[in-house]
Amino acid sequence: MCVGMPLDNKQLQDLRRIAGRDNVRDSIEERLLHAYDGTREERLPDAVVRGVSTEQIAAIMRWANETRISIYPRGAATGLSGGSVPAEGGIALALAGMNRIVEIDPGNLTAVTEPGVVNADLSRAASGYGLFFPPDPASMTVATIGGNVAENAGGLRGAKYGVTRDWILALEVVLPTGDVIQTGARTMKNVVGYDIMHLLVGSEGTLGIFTKITARLHPIPPARRTLLAFCRTARDAAQAAKEIIAAKIVPAVLEYMDRVTMIAIENYTKTAFPSEAEAALLIEVDGPEQTVADEARRIEELLTRQSVISTEVAGSEEAAERLWDARRAAAPALTTIAPLRISEDVCVPRADLPEMCEYIPVLRGEFGIEIAAFGHVGDGNLHVNMLIDPHDQPQADRAHAAIEKLFDKAIALGGTISGEHGIGTQKAWYVERQLGPVQVELMKSIKRAFDPNNVLNPHKMFLWRPE
Amino acid sequence: MCVGMPLDNKQLQDLRRIAGRDNVRDSIEERLLHAYDGTREERLPDAVVRGVSTEQIAAIMRWANETRISIYPRGAATGLSGGSVPAEGGIALALAGMNRIVEIDPGNLTAVTEPGVVNADLSRAASGYGLFFPPDPASMTVATIGGNVAENAGGLRGAKYGVTRDWILALEVVLPTGDVIQTGARTMKNVVGYDIMHLLVGSEGTLGIFTKITARLHPIPPARRTLLAFCRTARDAAQAAKEIIAAKIVPAVLEYMDRVTMIAIENYTKTAFPSEAEAALLIEVDGPEQTVADEARRIEELLTRQSVISTEVAGSEEAAERLWDARRAAAPALTTIAPLRISEDVCVPRADLPEMCEYIPVLRGEFGIEIAAFGHVGDGNLHVNMLIDPHDQPQADRAHAAIEKLFDKAIALGGTISGEHGIGTQKAWYVERQLGPVQVELMKSIKRAFDPNNVLNPHKMFLWRPE
Repeated sequence: MCVGMPLDNKQLQDLRRIAGRDNVRDSIEERLLHAYDGTREERLPDAVVRGVSTEQIAAIMRWANETRISIYPRGAATGLSGGSVPAEGGIALALAGMNRIVEIDPGNLTAVTEPGVVNADLSRAASGYGLFFPPDPASMTVATIGGNVAENAGGLRGAKYGVTRDWILALEVVLPTGDVIQTGARTMKNVVGYDIMHLLVGSEGTLGIFTKITARLHPIPPARRTLLAFCRTARDAAQAAKEIIAAKIVPAVLEYMDRVTMIAIENYTKTAFPSEAEAALLIEVDGPEQTVADEARRIEELLTRQSVISTEVAGSEEAAERLWDARRAAAPALTTIAPLRISEDVCVPRADLPEMCEYIPVLRGEFGIEIAAFGHVGDGNLHVNMLIDPHDQPQADRAHAAIEKLFDKAIALGGTISGEHGIGTQKAWYVERQLGPVQVELMKSIKRAFDPNNVLNPHKMFLWRPE
Repeated sequence: MCVGMPLDNKQLQDLRRIAGRDNVRDSIEERLLHAYDGTREERLPDAVVRGVSTEQIAAIMRWANETRISIYPRGAATGLSGGSVPAEGGIALALAGMNRIVEIDPGNLTAVTEPGVVNADLSRAASGYGLFFPPDPASMTVATIGGNVAENAGGLRGAKYGVTRDWILALEVVLPTGDVIQTGARTMKNVVGYDIMHLLVGSEGTLGIFTKITARLHPIPPARRTLLAFCRTARDAAQAAKEIIAAKIVPAVLEYMDRVTMIAIENYTKTAFPSEAEAALLIEVDGPEQTVADEARRIEELLTRQSVISTEVAGSEEAAERLWDARRAAAPALTTIAPLRISEDVCVPRADLPEMCEYIPVLRGEFGIEIAAFGHVGDGNLHVNMLIDPHDQPQADRAHAAIEKLFDKAIALGGTISGEHGIGTQKAWYVERQLGPVQVELMKSIKRAFDPNNVLNPHKMFLWRPE
């Protein structure tokens, strides 16, 4: 771990004056608590500041911009690419406390929240109006909306409901200079100027700090139907998923699990899956009762034609929840297999998913490391988990080489190296290979336009060479 | 009309060599044919170049960037904000000829097209696979996809299907410097770097020229049901629209027409509407047969409770088309009322639409000009048409004053001055009042990052002061 230098006394005094005495902490305990994210990366901030209002954050940013001290905003720090890690000293700005739902407007199907509202809490509050907030990263019971916006979080329902970017209408933003802008509008259409608002979504906390978020909500679908299908091979499962899409059914959920993931779940949850199953699909359709019943029937027929081993259709909400328990156990179950789970999330065109799924055993064979794959095949987004011991350097090196080949494969298929986790500190080394030098240079120009002194969440997304 | 200076002979020779002799025209006839757009604004380009390939366009832009000659890309020039008008001399780059549909991929529900493909032609080609391209600006039988992307075109189905930005996955782009980038990916999720791709959508041809467009397609809904309802007052109609949304029905189409528009349609199409009707709503729901039937029934009940004068429900496809004919006649019918129709398109939060509709007669009374309002109330987007004689200067001045008050009202309601037409040359004078100086300065920085010599579609979107 890189231990940053504490701020000098003058700086600490200034910061206390600007941010409020009680909102500034520099004990080693507080700094340790704000050093990590969902990766294993840890970097100690020099101090921790609790954000409490737009005005306070604007004042902090003005000061940071003048004194050239780095600010690293963070919500629940569940990110999986190092986006909120204090990369090189400076101040962790903790926003989880700004967790007020300002308004739910059922007439407009919109909500206004502060950045620290937990994703699931927004849907819970909206459910009283028969509404929900569709983006559902697996971390939704912990992750904050602000972090979701910063990372353009995806989730299990992406195939049908899209990603966070599709559900954000307007943002109040503190810029790296300390200026505050209102961008976007509370309207369904808006074509005034460049789309700064959508540019900020997915900017990984490098272009601005979101202090107020206006989101669209969606009516809760009246019915859902959940199916779990076991397949003989990974290719069978991927092919079945492809056939469902080609049949013009857009399931809310279409999740894939490979054999390694299934065994981990069996051991972790003490259940048993068919022993000859190499892969499984969790499928959920939602919508009006009649449509849902019809689509579930068509999916069952289609799975039978694809010669699945067996299909379980949940007959009740409780049964559906039991099917879901298996999928939800995937990530925790895999962490029991090896000391470190490196979770990649390549995304390829949906029709190319069978090829990607078949590539996993090839990688496993070539590099001699355990790999578990599961993910959101409805949108082509596959989580490829390298299960390694980070203290075994040769193994860690092989994992890195395997990741590089995995990325190359995704690009070769017309895909992308990250569907929802983002770049952060973890994947910056590869970005230019996907995007090319011209596009990376454009992005750096945008960063400079927003943040001329590079004080907001620096050292993320690109490899920054010294000027 | 401002008549630009023709290029000098050396420049014309260079251009012919770079772009191909047959692709460069400088006759007055060709220049006149490429001087206008859907507004009445006209500015003669110095010459017209026909774009034929990515490589040719890249070579043209490299030359233009070096010689500081402005390039104005255009598709079908149906835009309603001056976006493709050659604002201050330079070259009109005609892209309508690049109209090849490169690929339709039913497995991925995607299409790849050149920029000159007409919007409706893409849906026609996709219909063979049971698919369509949802963004449907009223100009869809003429407007090109490239122009749709540049303007982030909306349309009648925006409330349910969103706008062009929601349906674009990837772009091949010639930058103002002549560099070519591939941005976005053919995947449903992608979080690698800043979202340059979505920033380019709606950039009004000022940041890059799209030479290849990858779009998402959607399954054609199996059924639709169309209703036409006549209401006693504008407020009744707007309230009914609001109630439909609040009942969590998301119609594909929810169109509003006021009395002035209805009379124009009656005269133009020789039909008769109920004489006591001050407003009408055209409503269409689509989806699975059962859902559609159920939603249409609920809408009818809801309209009855809102005490509409009468509701016509189309019993067949032909009857539905007849109801549509009225709506489609709105724009042409209004052009017969006065020599000039200034078409504004404010957008407000849906729940505030009744207030906006009631404001139209206030404006009419205050400024003594005829105003017709119709539009996409499902998404809060109202087309406010000032019907004037541009040669009557006092009347034109009053129209401008009315537009300013209309914009102020939209902003006061938390809305925006343009839902789908864009800014172009027409609304640049107001942009800073909606966005504020900080955000406008950010946008200008982005323009400079992409186009350091300001050669691509200059003088659009912002008021550019001399440096």
